[in-house]
Amino acid sequence: MSGKNLFFLVLLLFIPVSLAAHYLEWGDLIVFITAGLAILPLAAWMGAATEEIAVVVGPTLGGLLNATFGNATELIIALVALNAGLVNVVKASITGSIISNLLLVMGLSMLLGGLRYKEQTFQPIVARVNASAMNLAVIAMLLPTAMNYTAKGIGEETLQYLSVAVAVVLILVYALTLLFSMKTHAYLYDVGIAEIETEENPHPKPNMFLWSGVLLVCTLLVAVESELLVDALEVATSQLGLTALFTGVILVPIVGNAAEHATAVTVAMKDKMDLSVSVAVGSSMQIALFVAPVLVIAGWILGQPMDLDFQPFELVAVVVSVLIANSISSDGKSNWLEGTLLLAAYAVLGFAFYFHPAISGIG
Amino acid sequence: MSGKNLFFLVLLLFIPVSLAAHYLEWGDLIVFITAGLAILPLAAWMGAATEEIAVVVGPTLGGLLNATFGNATELIIALVALNAGLVNVVKASITGSIISNLLLVMGLSMLLGGLRYKEQTFQPIVARVNASAMNLAVIAMLLPTAMNYTAKGIGEETLQYLSVAVAVVLILVYALTLLFSMKTHAYLYDVGIAEIETEENPHPKPNMFLWSGVLLVCTLLVAVESELLVDALEVATSQLGLTALFTGVILVPIVGNAAEHATAVTVAMKDKMDLSVSVAVGSSMQIALFVAPVLVIAGWILGQPMDLDFQPFELVAVVVSVLIANSISSDGKSNWLEGTLLLAAYAVLGFAFYFHPAISGIG
Amino acid sequence: MSGKNLFFLVLLLFIPVSLAAHYLEWGDLIVFITAGLAILPLAAWMGAATEEIAVVVGPTLGGLLNATFGNATELIIALVALNAGLVNVVKASITGSIISNLLLVMGLSMLLGGLRYKEQTFQPIVARVNASAMNLAVIAMLLPTAMNYTAKGIGEETLQYLSVAVAVVLILVYALTLLFSMKTHAYLYDVGIAEIETEENPHPKPNMFLWSGVLLVCTLLVAVESELLVDALEVATSQLGLTALFTGVILVPIVGNAAEHATAVTVAMKDKMDLSVSVAVGSSMQIALFVAPVLVIAGWILGQPMDLDFQPFELVAVVVSVLIANSISSDGKSNWLEGTLLLAAYAVLGFAFYFHPAISGIG
Repeated sequence: MSGKNLFFLVLLLFIPVSLAAHYLEWGDLIVFITAGLAILPLAAWMGAATEEIAVVVGPTLGGLLNATFGNATELIIALVALNAGLVNVVKASITGSIISNLLLVMGLSMLLGGLRYKEQTFQPIVARVNASAMNLAVIAMLLPTAMNYTAKGIGEETLQYLSVAVAVVLILVYALTLLFSMKTHAYLYDVGIAEIETEENPHPKPNMFLWSGVLLVCTLLVAVESELLVDALEVATSQLGLTALFTGVILVPIVGNAAEHATAVTVAMKDKMDLSVSVAVGSSMQIALFVAPVLVIAGWILGQPMDLDFQPFELVAVVVSVLIANSISSDGKSNWLEGTLLLAAYAVLGFAFYFHPAISGIG
Repeated sequence: MSGKNLFFLVLLLFIPVSLAAHYLEWGDLIVFITAGLAILPLAAWMGAATEEIAVVVGPTLGGLLNATFGNATELIIALVALNAGLVNVVKASITGSIISNLLLVMGLSMLLGGLRYKEQTFQPIVARVNASAMNLAVIAMLLPTAMNYTAKGIGEETLQYLSVAVAVVLILVYALTLLFSMKTHAYLYDVGIAEIETEENPHPKPNMFLWSGVLLVCTLLVAVESELLVDALEVATSQLGLTALFTGVILVPIVGNAAEHATAVTVAMKDKMDLSVSVAVGSSMQIALFVAPVLVIAGWILGQPMDLDFQPFELVAVVVSVLIANSISSDGKSNWLEGTLLLAAYAVLGFAFYFHPAISGIG
Repeated sequence: MSGKNLFFLVLLLFIPVSLAAHYLEWGDLIVFITAGLAILPLAAWMGAATEEIAVVVGPTLGGLLNATFGNATELIIALVALNAGLVNVVKASITGSIISNLLLVMGLSMLLGGLRYKEQTFQPIVARVNASAMNLAVIAMLLPTAMNYTAKGIGEETLQYLSVAVAVVLILVYALTLLFSMKTHAYLYDVGIAEIETEENPHPKPNMFLWSGVLLVCTLLVAVESELLVDALEVATSQLGLTALFTGVILVPIVGNAAEHATAVTVAMKDKMDLSVSVAVGSSMQIALFVAPVLVIAGWILGQPMDLDFQPFELVAVVVSVLIANSISSDGKSNWLEGTLLLAAYAVLGFAFYFHPAISGIG
């Protein structure tokens, strides 16, 4: 058993601990922290189970499965928070997921990979297709916000209609992106997929029933722990002196994206930058083109209307993150300084969100 | 006779129909639609006549002619609307022309071309020079708006002075761009021009007098139909439940740019992406560096002062269109997904303009 | 003796003239102009002395010296102005230095070089690393401004804390950039350094004591002349009908960057574009990553709190300058039209700053 698996087994202990903390009322701060820690191994095993099942069901259905369940942890946390009415935290966690994937995950990968290898290369074509899709997603997120900011007095209903219309377009584009990468232009992505398989699945025949069970159990447990996390969130973060914005943009995505962090950094240190960049950029693309629109539509159905009208400052943060990540990844080369620049950008954004006043409350 | 020409001949019938609708008072909506349809074949023949005359007078003068009359339809409609005092519609049609050339025309070309050919290539150098010129034009359009938005209380006169000064710089830059592409660095553009000639002029000696007559008659008829269109615009669009902004940004440019649409898509399906991209990007560059500044100066002379202070939301739309078009065209390759991304960007912008409240009236 | 040196010797006469103008009270306008002219040769000799000492002390220490004293003139003028409480002029001169290096210096170099050579090339890798660092610096400058603009009612103290935190990150990044360019990836920069040495130091053994003396004397004289310049600035510019913003953004950087202008243009006309671009982009990077953060920290110590909350319009100007400069330099090729586009962008920005109302006073 590897050190990583042992570490995850230990983290599993936080599932009973968090439940005890909740029912024995040890305080919201302890519930919040232990539930957050308990989600980490569950997210990792959900990812592993998805990969194993993907191998069994074949590349097409498997790719679709990966594309849908790849960000399942974020999606579950967000749905629970949305149902609890924490609309602003959910919105903030969307922007935060995009930012942390592009800056923190990709930055750490390029820095730690670059400390071992003078220059690392990856296929710029995949980075570019992803970058263009990200640009579209940013435009889609930007428009309702820009409209609300430049033309005061738009009704909430109009913003909601616009957001749903935009969400439908984004989900269609996401489906077409999958068609492109898995069918019509799959050859462009070959290297990456081959590496994923070698990397994650060294054994020949995974047991589909076992892994489906693992996936089901982990999904349920993530949902339970998310309930605890979300319930305790308001009190815990205000005890820590943090705003809802900082919690949503910085803390929640670190919990939700821990699995991507681990994968991207590990493979970068093995000089597999193609895979590392595609995990980081692909995950942020999935958030923007799939998770965010699904949440808009889910919010509509749940009676917790969630539009795409972000706080202008969140949008500034997403736009600059996408621009600097595109600028650094567009040449298909990386080194430790480029990783450092991404991390520095994340640090200054983190400072800014820390100091940003909480204008609109947690809900 | 080709199907396209037959189609255009049928559309010519809308000239008498629109005149009848106007004088017999069949209602503004009918005048608006029939005048719009009547302009389509006239614009196509103006384009054809310009090309033919350009062949006779030689590359230099011909290039100049193409560069000046290439967007004659938009210019005529805009001048008529400006003279009628519809300043906001004119401004909106400038931003709309840029957006529709970069997203709708280029997107359709890349999508339909990409459905036939897995990957299409074009010279990135021409795309890049055009992109840099577009960036400058966007900066020039952005500054008066940004100034008015960030420093409240600027006099209209100051904005007008700034706009005229900027317009003069842009027209100078346009002239230098022509000098660059036709004289000092013409070799960079050789492929494109050769293709235009092969494409559009298979016959050896066009009759200059005939085509000059066609150009003159079409210009006059476009002007007449533009009068009808503009007269009926306010009532017709409000009957359709559309704002002046949506009409200017989405409807008017589709009528004005129909010829470019047809050309760019047709040649893209013949795998001549160099020509297709240069029609789309070149046309939007011409709007930004030539048509818009000419309108500013014309407005000054006509006593209908038109500054470059756009609505912030229009500017957001232009900026994101230029960024995504640059990002997609910068590598000199295209495929159906990139076309789809451009069209999706156009769709979400279209939704946004549809839902955008009409704050400032039609004038 | 070359014509350039003779010209500088003549300019030295303005040192006694400016002192006389100050003490004999010939008027602030005369003091302002003569002090500005007196700084030009001093800045040039400070640069020359730094280069000579750098040769003696070896590449590492020499590179560090160059990186620290390269913008000494700007830094001294800014410190004197900051000490006199002209915080807004200092901020404006930071944005102005970035803009003038990227647009005016690089534009003139590409235009004048491009009039001699059809196409000039330079290493895009260095341009790209610099561009990514500039993007980070722009983000850092943008965040406090965006925060203050989007969330009204932030305390001055919060902005100050955020600015100092960001300044510390930027100085760390600057140090890492030096480590990258001088140690771990020095080979990427080899061409440039070799050219600098051939260019500037044809003679074998510079006298270190002589040049240290020159550096010391020039630094002191620049400080004295800066005092005169800053003292006379308010009255002189208002006599000229100029705002503090225009003075800071356009006038002060032309004086402070004269040495870079001369070097960059001269070497561009010898077809050494690598060196020319790296002077222009490197200098603007140094301003953003070193001079600006040092001023924030110095202002804190001097009791003249200077945050990174710029006027939104200044920020718009910096962002568009960086975007157009990146877009033009990213392909490693230049021609006269690209130089013209940069100069045209500088011209329209100049017009805009000229017409921009002075909202916040000189201090």
